[in-house]
Amino acid sequence: MSRFFSARYADLTPYTPGEQPQNRVYLKLNTNESPFPPSPGVAAAVEAQSRNLALYSDPECVKLRAKMAQVYGLEPDQVMMGNGSDEVLNLAFMAFADEAHPLAFADVTYGFYPVFAQVNHIPYTEISLKEDFSLDPADYIGVNKTVVIANPNAPTGLYLPLGDIERIVKSNPDNVVIVDEAYIDFGGESAVTLLDRCKNLLVVGTFSKSRSMAGARLGFGFGSPKLIADLNTLRYSTNPYNINRMTDAAGLAALEENGYYMNNCQIIIENRVWFTEQLRRLGFRVLDSQTNFVFAESPKIAGGELYRQLKENGILVRHFEKDRLTNFNRITIGTREQMQTLINKIAEIMEENDHENC
Amino acid sequence: MSRFFSARYADLTPYTPGEQPQNRVYLKLNTNESPFPPSPGVAAAVEAQSRNLALYSDPECVKLRAKMAQVYGLEPDQVMMGNGSDEVLNLAFMAFADEAHPLAFADVTYGFYPVFAQVNHIPYTEISLKEDFSLDPADYIGVNKTVVIANPNAPTGLYLPLGDIERIVKSNPDNVVIVDEAYIDFGGESAVTLLDRCKNLLVVGTFSKSRSMAGARLGFGFGSPKLIADLNTLRYSTNPYNINRMTDAAGLAALEENGYYMNNCQIIIENRVWFTEQLRRLGFRVLDSQTNFVFAESPKIAGGELYRQLKENGILVRHFEKDRLTNFNRITIGTREQMQTLINKIAEIMEENDHENC
Repeated sequence: MSRFFSARYADLTPYTPGEQPQNRVYLKLNTNESPFPPSPGVAAAVEAQSRNLALYSDPECVKLRAKMAQVYGLEPDQVMMGNGSDEVLNLAFMAFADEAHPLAFADVTYGFYPVFAQVNHIPYTEISLKEDFSLDPADYIGVNKTVVIANPNAPTGLYLPLGDIERIVKSNPDNVVIVDEAYIDFGGESAVTLLDRCKNLLVVGTFSKSRSMAGARLGFGFGSPKLIADLNTLRYSTNPYNINRMTDAAGLAALEENGYYMNNCQIIIENRVWFTEQLRRLGFRVLDSQTNFVFAESPKIAGGELYRQLKENGILVRHFEKDRLTNFNRITIGTREQMQTLINKIAEIMEENDHENC
Repeated sequence: MSRFFSARYADLTPYTPGEQPQNRVYLKLNTNESPFPPSPGVAAAVEAQSRNLALYSDPECVKLRAKMAQVYGLEPDQVMMGNGSDEVLNLAFMAFADEAHPLAFADVTYGFYPVFAQVNHIPYTEISLKEDFSLDPADYIGVNKTVVIANPNAPTGLYLPLGDIERIVKSNPDNVVIVDEAYIDFGGESAVTLLDRCKNLLVVGTFSKSRSMAGARLGFGFGSPKLIADLNTLRYSTNPYNINRMTDAAGLAALEENGYYMNNCQIIIENRVWFTEQLRRLGFRVLDSQTNFVFAESPKIAGGELYRQLKENGILVRHFEKDRLTNFNRITIGTREQMQTLINKIAEIMEENDHENC
C-alpha cells in the first residue's frame, strides 16, 4: 500500500478470483466456464465490429437490450447491460443499500458480496446457511434489509424454489431483493416471471456461464423501469460506455442462436447427473446441484489434498480455504470426456491414498 | 428515481456523453474519435479471440502490460489496464482522494471529473482557468490537494508544457497528481518520463483517440508500482476481469503496429493546422490545440446556433451549454476530406447568416 492510499480503503480485502493460469494448459474445471465455444454467429459478428472500433459503442445498447427484452419477455426499459454481472452487482449494491438499508446475504455464497459491501462502506449481515448448506427462507422473511441471494447458490449449487424467493421478496417491501441468477440456466426457474408483481425485485444474470462468454464480459440486470433507471444513474456516473462494440455484437449474435446455448445446458445437466453418480460411487458426498458445477467432499481425503494432487496432474478445480468449506472442492462440469478423465484421476488418487493408509 | 434509491446518490448528476446517434449517419465530429480504422492486425487478433470467449480473460493482462511497458519504457508493474480511461480515473479518484485529500481541478476541463468526485463523495475545488482558457500553474503549486490535470486540456485543446507539470507534481509531495493524457499523442510531451523521479505522479491514457479504439474500451494508468498496486486493490474489489479477451488482444495487436497510429496522429495534426487556418480565415477565434479537436467561436454566430445548423445538415460537433463555453463548439479533426466538407458548410452557413443580418 502506498502512503497515498485513502484511509477509506485501508482495511479492504479484495476478491480473489479463481486461478487463470497463463503458462500451463490445464483441464480447467475451476471457474465454471462452459466447455463449449460460442455459437457460429458470434465470431462473424465480432469480426465485423473489429473494423468499427474507432467509434464509441452505444452507451444505451439499444439493439441488444431490445433483443434481451424479447428473449426474456420484458420491455427494454426493464433491462440494463453490464461489463459482467460483477459490474451490475456493484452498481446495485451502491444504488439500493446503505446505512439505512444494510445488506443481508448468506455466509456461504459468492465471495464478492462482502467485498462489494466493504468497498462501498455498506454494513452487512452474513446469515448462516443450515448445517446441510441449504438456505432457510425464514431467515430472510421480513428481515427488512437489502437481501442478496445467489440462486442457485455458489459454491454449494443448491437451488431455492421460486415460491420461496417470491415470499422473501414480498415480505421485504421497503427493500430491494437482488437475486443473482448466474447459474439459473442449468435447471432452476428464473425469478424474471415475478418482475411484473414485485417492484422491489432485481434479477441479475450473466453470459459467462450458460452462454460461453466469460471472456467477453457481459452481464445484465432486470427490474422495474425505475430500478433500472437508478442503476443507469450510477452507470452514467462511473462508466457509460461499459459495453464495448465487440461484446455488444457478440451478445446480440448469441441471443439470435439461443437454442444452441440452451441445448448445451441440457448436455451439461446430463453430464452433471452422470458425474455426481460417479463421485458418489467413489464415496463422495455431493450436494444436489442445479448449476454447471458440483460441490463435493470425501471422508477419505482432505479437500485441499485432493485439489493439490489434481493440480499436479494437470487438472484444476476450485478449493476454498474457508471454515466449513475446507474439505470440499467445487468442480465445474465440462464435456463427458473431461468428466471421465477427471473421475479416472480421482479414482486413481483415492486408490493410492487407500494404499498409503494401509 | 425509485423510492429504493440510496440517499447517498440522490443529488448526483450523471455525466452526459456526446451524442451517439444510432439511427442517422452523420459526419461525426463530436466525440473526438479517430477517422482511421484500427490497424490490420487488430481484426485478426480479435477474430482469433472470438472463438475463445468461453474462458475468462487474464485479470492481470500479463502480455498486454508487458508490451505497454516495452513501448513506454516502463516496467510491467508500473502499468494498469482499464475498461477505458474512465475506469482508471474513477479508481484513481477513489484510491487517492478523500476528505483528507480533496480534489482540485480546472473549472473548464473533462466534465467527468466532478461526477467521479460526487459519486465517491470526495470534496473538490474547481480552479478557474484564466480568461484566455489557459491554466496558470501557480494555482496548483503547493495547493496540497489531489490534483487532476487533463493535458492537453479538453475542451480547450490547450497544452501545458512538461516543465510546469513537473513543478506542480514536485510542489505537492503529500498528494498524488493525476495527469490525464487522453490527447497527448497529438503534439504534447508525455509526463511518463517524470515517473522515475516523481513517486506521486499518476499518468492516465487511452486507446480511444490516437489508437482508433473508442469502441474497444481500453485505457491505462502509469505510476509507481505502489500506486498501481493501490489501483489494483480497488480493481479487484470492483471488477477484476475488467478487460475482456477481445479488447486485450486488440490492444496488443495495436501496439505491435504502433507506427501506423503514430503516423495517423501526424496526419491529424496536419489536418488540424489546415482546418484552424481555414476557420480563422472565416473570422473564427480558434484556441491553439495540441489535440485531435479544435475549440472555436465566431463573433458572427452563436455557438448553439452553429451547432444546430450543422446538425440539420448532417454534421455533428459538440456544443456545451455551460457558462463561458456557450459561444464555442468543439470540433473533432477528421480526414482532410471531412474537414473540407465541414469548412464548406460552415462558410455557407456564415454567408446565409450575413444575408439575414443585412
